[in-house]
Order: sequence, then C-alpha cells, then structure tokens
Amino acid sequence: MKRTLKSQTDLLPVLAFGAHPDDIEFACGGVVAKEILLGRPAHFIICSQGEAGSHGTPKQRVAEAKKSAKLLGASLEFIRLDGDAHLEIKSAHAIKLAGIVRRLKPDIVLAPSLVENQHPDHWRLGCLVRDAVRLARYGGVKELQNLKPHAIGQFLFYAVTHDAEPRDLTPVFIDVSSPDILASWTAAMQAHASQTAARAYIELQLARARANGLRAGISHAIALFPGNPFVLDSLAPLSRGARGF
Amino acid sequence: MKRTLKSQTDLLPVLAFGAHPDDIEFACGGVVAKEILLGRPAHFIICSQGEAGSHGTPKQRVAEAKKSAKLLGASLEFIRLDGDAHLEIKSAHAIKLAGIVRRLKPDIVLAPSLVENQHPDHWRLGCLVRDAVRLARYGGVKELQNLKPHAIGQFLFYAVTHDAEPRDLTPVFIDVSSPDILASWTAAMQAHASQTAARAYIELQLARARANGLRAGISHAIALFPGNPFVLDSLAPLSRGARGF
Amino acid sequence: MKRTLKSQTDLLPVLAFGAHPDDIEFACGGVVAKEILLGRPAHFIICSQGEAGSHGTPKQRVAEAKKSAKLLGASLEFIRLDGDAHLEIKSAHAIKLAGIVRRLKPDIVLAPSLVENQHPDHWRLGCLVRDAVRLARYGGVKELQNLKPHAIGQFLFYAVTHDAEPRDLTPVFIDVSSPDILASWTAAMQAHASQTAARAYIELQLARARANGLRAGISHAIALFPGNPFVLDSLAPLSRGARGF
Amino acid sequence: MKRTLKSQTDLLPVLAFGAHPDDIEFACGGVVAKEILLGRPAHFIICSQGEAGSHGTPKQRVAEAKKSAKLLGASLEFIRLDGDAHLEIKSAHAIKLAGIVRRLKPDIVLAPSLVENQHPDHWRLGCLVRDAVRLARYGGVKELQNLKPHAIGQFLFYAVTHDAEPRDLTPVFIDVSSPDILASWTAAMQAHASQTAARAYIELQLARARANGLRAGISHAIALFPGNPFVLDSLAPLSRGARGF
Amino acid sequence: MKRTLKSQTDLLPVLAFGAHPDDIEFACGGVVAKEILLGRPAHFIICSQGEAGSHGTPKQRVAEAKKSAKLLGASLEFIRLDGDAHLEIKSAHAIKLAGIVRRLKPDIVLAPSLVENQHPDHWRLGCLVRDAVRLARYGGVKELQNLKPHAIGQFLFYAVTHDAEPRDLTPVFIDVSSPDILASWTAAMQAHASQTAARAYIELQLARARANGLRAGISHAIALFPGNPFVLDSLAPLSRGARGF
Amino acid sequence: MKRTLKSQTDLLPVLAFGAHPDDIEFACGGVVAKEILLGRPAHFIICSQGEAGSHGTPKQRVAEAKKSAKLLGASLEFIRLDGDAHLEIKSAHAIKLAGIVRRLKPDIVLAPSLVENQHPDHWRLGCLVRDAVRLARYGGVKELQNLKPHAIGQFLFYAVTHDAEPRDLTPVFIDVSSPDILASWTAAMQAHASQTAARAYIELQLARARANGLRAGISHAIALFPGNPFVLDSLAPLSRGARGF
Repeated sequence: MKRTLKSQTDLLPVLAFGAHPDDIEFACGGVVAKEILLGRPAHFIICSQGEAGSHGTPKQRVAEAKKSAKLLGASLEFIRLDGDAHLEIKSAHAIKLAGIVRRLKPDIVLAPSLVENQHPDHWRLGCLVRDAVRLARYGGVKELQNLKPHAIGQFLFYAVTHDAEPRDLTPVFIDVSSPDILASWTAAMQAHASQTAARAYIELQLARARANGLRAGISHAIALFPGNPFVLDSLAPLSRGARGF
Repeated sequence: MKRTLKSQTDLLPVLAFGAHPDDIEFACGGVVAKEILLGRPAHFIICSQGEAGSHGTPKQRVAEAKKSAKLLGASLEFIRLDGDAHLEIKSAHAIKLAGIVRRLKPDIVLAPSLVENQHPDHWRLGCLVRDAVRLARYGGVKELQNLKPHAIGQFLFYAVTHDAEPRDLTPVFIDVSSPDILASWTAAMQAHASQTAARAYIELQLARARANGLRAGISHAIALFPGNPFVLDSLAPLSRGARGF
Repeated sequence: MKRTLKSQTDLLPVLAFGAHPDDIEFACGGVVAKEILLGRPAHFIICSQGEAGSHGTPKQRVAEAKKSAKLLGASLEFIRLDGDAHLEIKSAHAIKLAGIVRRLKPDIVLAPSLVENQHPDHWRLGCLVRDAVRLARYGGVKELQNLKPHAIGQFLFYAVTHDAEPRDLTPVFIDVSSPDILASWTAAMQAHASQTAARAYIELQLARARANGLRAGISHAIALFPGNPFVLDSLAPLSRGARGF
Repeated sequence: MKRTLKSQTDLLPVLAFGAHPDDIEFACGGVVAKEILLGRPAHFIICSQGEAGSHGTPKQRVAEAKKSAKLLGASLEFIRLDGDAHLEIKSAHAIKLAGIVRRLKPDIVLAPSLVENQHPDHWRLGCLVRDAVRLARYGGVKELQNLKPHAIGQFLFYAVTHDAEPRDLTPVFIDVSSPDILASWTAAMQAHASQTAARAYIELQLARARANGLRAGISHAIALFPGNPFVLDSLAPLSRGARGF
Repeated sequence: MKRTLKSQTDLLPVLAFGAHPDDIEFACGGVVAKEILLGRPAHFIICSQGEAGSHGTPKQRVAEAKKSAKLLGASLEFIRLDGDAHLEIKSAHAIKLAGIVRRLKPDIVLAPSLVENQHPDHWRLGCLVRDAVRLARYGGVKELQNLKPHAIGQFLFYAVTHDAEPRDLTPVFIDVSSPDILASWTAAMQAHASQTAARAYIELQLARARANGLRAGISHAIALFPGNPFVLDSLAPLSRGARGF
Repeated sequence: MKRTLKSQTDLLPVLAFGAHPDDIEFACGGVVAKEILLGRPAHFIICSQGEAGSHGTPKQRVAEAKKSAKLLGASLEFIRLDGDAHLEIKSAHAIKLAGIVRRLKPDIVLAPSLVENQHPDHWRLGCLVRDAVRLARYGGVKELQNLKPHAIGQFLFYAVTHDAEPRDLTPVFIDVSSPDILASWTAAMQAHASQTAARAYIELQLARARANGLRAGISHAIALFPGNPFVLDSLAPLSRGARGF
C-alpha cells in the first residue's frame, strides 16, 4: 500500500538516531540542514547524554544538542538505553526504537554505520536501528500492539569518522555545497562547544566533505551508505557520478 | 561547467555497450524500454556479430539485434573490435570507444560488469568502456583531437547473468513493473530468436527481475551497479529501499 | 575416531534449525525432501511460534509447521528461546542448542546464514547454532555433562531470501529438479497457508531455485553455504559445476 | 546432454595446466596422485620450460617434469605460449588452450589461482584457462571448428603458495593422508631436483598440507578452490567439514 | 601528550589477553618471548580456567599457565568474566578490561582476532578488548573514575588457528627465527601438557610459523593483524616484505 | 644473503614509479621529502610526459617534473612505454622495469595502487611494477642477463586519489607533520603549475593528509598500502596506531 503512495512522500520526515549528543551533527548535519531547507521535517533521537566522554557534563551536552538541533530546525528527543559507553544489543532496545519509528512514521531513517572499529556505542546503535526498522513492520510484536506497523522507505548509514565508513557498501554523496547549508551545518557543529574545544572535530568533518566534494566536482558532499538497494523509477536521479581527477 | 548544467540533462541519451548482439537486451532491456518511454534517447553499440556463439549466423544475429532495437526504440550501431570471443584489452579499443562517447555525448553509459567469471568478452568490454569514459574527458588524447572532450554523468554496470553481479557494489533497482515495459522488454528479447530457441534466456531474465521485484515490494526490477558513487541534491530520490520479506 | 567411520554415516540425520515455523521449508525444504527420499532422517528444531509475525496465530503456525514437516517426512520439535523477534545471543542458548545436537547426534546441521540484513532472529540463530555445534564437542561444559560430546560432520547455512545469501562463501547447489521433490517441497511450503496467503513466498523460492537451476544446467537447485571447508576423498563428487550461459 | 551422463563420468580425465615444469606437482601433486590411484587418467599441460628461473636449464627441467609425471602416472605435454616470465593474456592463447580442452575432453580442469600477487605467469595462466574452458563450449569459434565443443564438469584453482590462495572462495580439502599418496607426491616433487636444491619447496608444501590436515582432523590435505559453485545430488558428499581445534 | 613521548616508550609493556589458559602461548608465544628478550615487560590476562575443555582440570590448567608464563618471563593474572565457553559481550566486561588497561598502562595490546568461525570465547574476547582499549581513553566512564585514562599505542590481533586469521587485514610477520626464541616458545607450549597430550597443537603452531618464515625468507615468523593503521616516522621499518617463492 | 644485511640497508634508495609527471608528488611527495631528509636517496621513473592530459604541453610537464624532483632532492628519469593514456600490460614493459630495478637496486619501491577505477595508466603501471620487482629476482630472464638479479626489500602502493585507495589492504600512515616536510611537499606540488592551475589538486592532497593526521593524532600523514606483509624483528616499530576520535 505504502509503496504505491511513494510519490507523495517527499515531505515525510527523516529520523536520525545518535548514540551521543553530537554524533548526528558531526556525521551528517549538512544533510539534515539541506533536507530541512527543502521542507522535510527532521527528528533526532539521542540515546545518551554523552556522560562517559572526556569533555562536557551531561547537562552541558544536552543543552548543546538542543541548541544545535534548534539551529538546524530539527526536533530532538533524548531517550535512555544503557547509557554512554554501556550500550548493549538487546531485543528490548530494538523494540523500543521500533516503537519510536512507528510513532514518528519516518520516510528515511539515518543511523551510525555497522563498522565495529569505532566507538562501541555507534555500531551497536546501528545494529539496533537496523533491527528496529524491520520490527516496526511486523504486526505481531506484543510490546508494540498499540502502535500501527510502519514500513519506512529507506535506511541509510552515516559514518562519524573515516574509520566508520563501510568498505562493502557503495556510498551516495549528498551535495551540501551551498554556502547557507555549510554555514548552518558549521553552526550546528559549533553548538557542541564542549567537544570542539577539545579536538578538531569541525575541521575533520569539513575536510571529509571537501574531499568528497572534490571527487564529485562540487564544493562539499557528505557520504551516506545504503542500508538496502535503492529502488528507482528511472535512471534520471543517477545522472551525476563522483568521478574526480 | 557541465556539472552546473545537470538539471537540464534529463533527456541526454543513455549509451549502452554490448559485446554481443543480445547482451544489452537480456541484461537490461527493461531499463532501456523505460528510459525511452520517459523520453530519453537510447543508443546501442554492439562490438561483435556473435559469430563465435553456438547458435545463429552473424547475418541472423545482426538482423535480430536491429529488430530488437527497433522494437525498443533505440538506435543501433555495430563496431568491430577483435571479434566475438577474441576481445582483448587494448588502449586502441578504449580510445575508439572514447571517440564514440565524445560523438554521442551520453549522460549515462551502461556496460557489462567487471566480474571475470562470465563470457570473456563481457568483462573485457566493461574494462574498456570504464577506461573509455575517462579518456573521453582528457583533452590531450591525439587520436581524439577532432572530437570535443565529453564528461558523462554516470557510469553503470549491468550483469547478463547472476554470476556477473558484482558482490562489492551496492545494486540499484530500476522498477520495470508496468505491463507495457515488461511487454516491450520481452518482445525485444524474443527478437533474438536464434538464441532463445536454444536456451531459456527469457525465463532466466524475467525470473531475475521478478525476484528483485519481490525484494522491492513491486512486480519486477532490474539491478544495475554503480560505477561511481551517486551524487544527489537531497535524500528525496532515495526514499524507496528494497527490503523484502 | 568418528572421522574414520564417515563412510558409514550416510544415514545419520540432518538437523535443521529454524527461527520461525516456516523458515526451514521456505529456505531449503527441497533439500530436506531429497535427503529424506534418499533415506536420511531429518529433524527440525523450531525456536519460536512466529508470534511476532503479521499473519497467523501461534496456534495456526504450530499446526502448519507440523503439517509441513509431516508432508516432508521430518520430525519436529518446538523449543523456546526468547520468543519471536526477541532472540538474543546468549551463551545459555548456545549451550541449550548444543545439548540438542548431542542428543540427536546429527551428521549435518543446517542453520540460517549470518548475513545481518535479514530478520533479526535469523542471523542470531545462525550464530547460536554455529557456536552450539562447537560446544557440542567440548568435554567440559557443565550443563551438558549428562550428554556425550558429539562432533558433527558438516555445518551449512541456508538463506531464507536473496539478501541473506553470504557473499563471501562459495555456494553449493543441491539439485532438487525431480518433479516429486519439487512437488513435496511445494506442498510443504503450501502448508504454511497463513504466510503464503499474505505474500508470494512460494513464487519467490521457486524463482530462486529455478534461477540456480538455469545456472547449473538443470531444472531447480537450492544454494547452501559451507560453514567449513569441505573435506573430500577425491575430486569425484566435484565434477559438476554451475557454469551457465 | 552431457549433464545427464555425469554418473558415468567418474573416470573421465583430470587436466591440469602449469605455467612452469614444477607448478602442478608442488601445488597439488598429491591430489593428482590420488586421482590416478582411483583410476582417473591425468594429463599435464606445461606452458613453458621454466627458462627464466634462477635454477636449472630448460633441458634439465623438461627432463625433471617428465620424470615427475611418470612417477605419478600422468601423461605430459609441453606447449609454447610466450615463454617463461613472458606470458600475456591474449585471446589466441585462450583459444589454443580451448582446443586442448576439446581434444582431451576432461571432466575436471585444474589451473593456478587468479590471485595476482604471485609469479606473473601463474595468475595469467589461470585467467587463460578459465576463459578456455568457456570457449571450449562455444560452437562458433572458427579456429576450433575441427574440434567438437566440450563442456567440462568443473574447474578448480590450485595455489602454488600461501599468497596465491584466494580469500574470496571457500576451499575444498582433498584428503591426501595415506602414506602411499604422500610418498608418491613427495617423489614427484623430488624429481624437480634443480628446484628443490635451491629452496625448501617440498617442506613448504608438506607443511601446508599438514596444517590443512590438522584443521580437518586428518593427516594431510590439499586445498583447491572452486571455479564455480558445486552442484550435488545430495548432502552426502558434504558430511566432512574441516573444523579443527 | 603520550604521542610525543613515543620515542621513549620502547619498554612499555605488552599486554596480552587470552580466553583460555593456553591461547596466548599457542597463538603468539614466540612474539612474547622475543619482546621479553628485548627488554619489554609482558603481562597476560587469562579470562577463564579452561574448565569447559575436554582435557585438563581447572587446577591443572592454571598451574600449566603459570609455569608457561614463568618460562617466558611474563607476569600472569587470572580474571573471571562468564567462564569458559560462556563468554558474552557485555559492556561491564569491556569496562572491567578497560580498567585493567588503565592499571597496567600497556603500549601494545594483543587479543584474539574477530573472525567468528572459531571458539566462541575467542572472538568475543577480541571484541571486548577492542572496545576496552577505546573505553580506557574516555574520561567520563564512572566505573573507572579512580584510574587515569590511558591511550595505548597499538592494538594487534593474534589468531589461534588458521581459521581465525582475518582475511581483510594485512598481516605483519614477527621474526621468531632465532633458536633461543623458538626454544622458549616451544617450552611455553609444552607447559600446557594437558592440551598437547590430546592434540598436535605444538606441531600446528610450528608448522604455521615455519610456513610464514618460508614466505619471508627466514626460518620462522608469527603473523599478527593490525587493529589500526600503523603510524610510522619513515619507511625504514618497512624495508622487509614477505615475498617468497 | 640480502636479508641478513637488512640492518645496513637503511640508506638504500627508494624508487618511485609514476605514470605521469606529477603522480608521485601528488600521491606521496611528502613521504619522499621525509625519506630524503633522513638521508635515503630517492629516484623517480616517469613513464610518460603527460601528453594526453587536458593541461600543459609535454615540454612544460617535463620541466615541471624536473623542477619538482629537484626541489625534493630526488633524481628523475623519463622512460617511454606506450605513452600517456595508452599504457598496456605487456611482459616487455615489466621486463624493462625489472631492468631498472636491477640497475638502481632499491630497497623500497613505490607504485600506483591496483584499484582499477582510476586513470587507466595508474593501475596498469602498478601491475607492471609489481611484476617487475618479481622478475628482477629471477635469474634466467634473458633480456636481463647483463644485470645482476636484485631482491627489493618491500613494495608499497600509493593512491593518487581517494578512489585509488585499496579497500583490502591495511594502510600504513607515514607521519609528514613537520612544517619543513609539508613545505617541501607543497613546493614540489606547486612546481606542477600547469596542473594546479586547472584543478584543486594541492588542496585535495593536503586535505587527505590532514584527515589521516587527525585519525592518527598528529598533524598530517600519507597512507601507503603494503604490497606484501611486513616482516619485523619486534613489535617496537608498531607502537603507534591511528585510532582517532
């Protein structure tokens, strides 16, 4: 049913999951900024307060995340799973996230990649979200009986760092070259002041986006990684390839 | 330069290369049918007359290919490289193909995948085309001096059989579910009567497309494989993922 | 010791594990049908009642599974782990499954593949069974002290869907072409009426088997994936390769 | 046609291709010894006289290869392609090898693996043989018109060294544990005296086979790598898996 | 801070984690022997008493491990996680191991590889250690507040068997050719008498090291697998490559 | 023989092969700068004059390369293979390059990576060099009889762009953080003025090196990719891992 209605879903929300208060913004804040500019609502689900990090108190980090989301125009929700640096893969977590998916009915879901050589919470959250978007479709899950099953349109991974980029998935580059998008993204990253004071996170992310942009013959691009093959009506959306140098 | 004109390139041609008279139609005829229906011109470059095959004379096979292309609405050109079952990777071939790319100025180029465990001509042609679309961009290639450099938009691989599907590239599924597209594709395959009489090629291709379709929650889909990361302006084109069962 | 007795083990049972009442039949029911026809006993261990699915009550699904196994000639056992859509990877589960392996002393064990982009219960069960067949060999596991260690002969993965097919293991195709095997397999799938009413599962599985068959130059084949390298006495069993088209 | 006759093909020959006079024996001489013992004829096609090696004259090496093949009971043929350390991938070579395949009508073909980080002649010969066994099937190849098309049963790769073992194919272990087979294999390797005097080749190969044997719970085994999925009538041949320690 | 002090860290300890009393010695005892000879302290953390194994009582195995470590000159510590054959991936375990890392302040950490087709405890311990060395760096982990954060220099995987060798990481070979190192390693393995009586573990490990040595043009070498890219000041340390035969 | 002399080979030259006049400098000029600073001689072999490129005449490009090498302190040699954009894999080329290796007797050889999705000359030159360093060791190659066989120490790949970075080899990062090294590298790149005027090559390379540096906790690093496993005497050189963020 849903599938046949796809052409009208352009404005259904994008839902991004983050293990820590700053992950979404650093990894793909520019994509979120662009989607919002194009009229798509964005929701963030943050699964810890970053309390195990070396810098910033939970209170500060929650405030920073709220400020950052506000700058982007995204809505924000904190949930509690096992706490920062304590995340485990439990079916109860996946079901909880599936409930959020049912409630928010997103078109597109973003989550950290499954590459294991990164912060332990990142890939575990990616696993949980991948399972959650599947469970959101299954009609018989008891804990979710009061929420209608929802099939999302697509599931994409983001990579907080180079190391987290999956080597077995072909990336898709989202063009974030326009100055207003870059400014909005940068402002959102700057809002996480407790983190950016300690390490050159913003420089890292802009360098990654610039390198992608150079490959693509544009200014800046953010790489996302498909959770499933893309289904398209024609070749038209594919007519730009990143083939630099 | 070209990049900034992308929004107007929707109707620039798709150029498909085939090692034998029937490869394009069997591998991705449905995609071609759909593109033509949507107003995009399609050109086929066929690099042998299938003279090493077990069935059909070169004369028959050329006639079949012409009939098939006509049914689809594609234009067709036979070229000579080394002959069927004799194709080698030579820079002169790549430059010859680059000249064709410069002459026809396609937006999207299709070629056989690089998986080596298939007909020896298939992956070699894929290599040559991949190199050709790069050489088409380089200004100093002497043999091509009388043709203006051309940068294509995107390069995609097709797979004539299961075995030829690359395992390290994330496929993109093109929806070919509508009855008229399926009918047009089937007719194009049937035009290769010398081949379909000998083996169940049509059944194989429709079974593959049906299996893809079932994964994607639609009727039929053909998988293509990106030669380069896709560059997109937003997430909108990605909102359908193949996530069946 | 066991190894030298291998030539007499032809009739030792095949033991198949399924996360849900219909998984084994859909993924590899044809293989089971053939083994039973050839005189090998088959046992199914089903680890949930499919209670989280969108279609069919647990009662219906248990009845369907019993009917299906009966049609095939397999014996069937339901066990409880964490319940449908709730399966977790716990050592207690692996040990429980190892106990079943010790009790039933199978020669060959079948389990769902480890590819993670499928139903969350599938690959987790695959993990648990892989660990279980190893633990079944270790003499000191306390919970299993009253059961004699058992070393199985071989461990193979099945894939319920295309997406679940491992890309890093070379498949082995089991020929299920004979009409009686296909009929028996189809009947076993049809017995899961609550599922087949909702989606085209049978068509999907037969299309997959037909596509494999076309690759192998036969009618139908089911792909399994080796859990360990095969050990053979000679090249004789290898003299048929799937090399179609 | 051929496929239905498979049950009678047990004694059809194995055909092994080697780039240098000693490659086959070092890589898989034990497998050849076993096949011959079981009554299967074996033919070796040697594509150079090892004239670029550091040790042994062409004359010596031809004599050693003849002696070695005689010890194993295999027939031997030297052919000329481009010469040792000069092999190139040319369609004329593949067609020449295809002619040999048509003439000798083997059931099983062995060739060096395609891993490129080994002697340049090895993987190139593997490519040529892979293509040759395909071309042997195609009816229209002009150079081969006077030889009837032949479809082999299966194509397997051997690895002369560790580095040449493909990482993306699941190995199959052939049990070469019996003392007479090991003795025959060792003698065949010793016949290449010009080579074994210079480096510890025999020790290397026996160490590899012993390590495989330990994994498989037997004495010695040689790993081969499938060129295509295996097609089997039942699970029976699969009931031994290498799962050591 | 630590990074700039690297040139003085040559003698900071190596910390090796083992799931069972004999894993470290069998997998990489020769490397430990060499490091100790060169003046680097070595500590072993053993996470079970091997109580689920088929051979040896816990008491025996603890005694064997102590004897073995003493022979090598390493210090040894037994800890309790979930017990042999019961290990699970829990954040509490990773945090416990991170505490050990903070306490012992190693330069280099060794742990079992992440390849899943081995003893279930091995790869799980590898996961836990990988996460632990990351958590050891994060300042806010509550359970670790009384221990100063510590950033290790490098993290390397060992492989207890062939099957456990990662196929996607480039190995580094540590030269253990000198007779005294080999003797020390062998003695350490022999100390695990309850295990070596049952299976040919020592022969397996020496065969693996000999095969590596032959590839590298030396006597014996042990392969380790990098947990992260190596960072070097120059090409000087890289001037020996394993390129045999 | 050579192996035992390794400790004295620190100052043996590094030999870098480039397909075009600017490839070496852009890909790994910083590494070369550092090696030269540390007293290791560096030689460049340039295999075309870049005559197929869009920018710069052959004369200009040769002059730029000479200037660039001079700035770095490397010696430079132009050779002719098939010409820019025309390179083919021929045994005569590999033998020619092997002759250069024998003549220059390098310790370490650098060549472009084998990833095929880059300039067609790049990966082909990588293939040729990989084969050449092997052929340089073989005593019987006739064309090389007047040059003594030479076994290099190690073979490393460089990647001119992101796309050319091998995904199946673990990179090693060479620290090029010191301001003088960065300045020397930048000057060497700037010397290729005809190229840098047209595209942001310098920015790309510095961005890549900066991103690597951030991963490694330093300023800048260049990634190289091992052609063979590293052989080391101890763990000491490995005590810095790139594990950022």
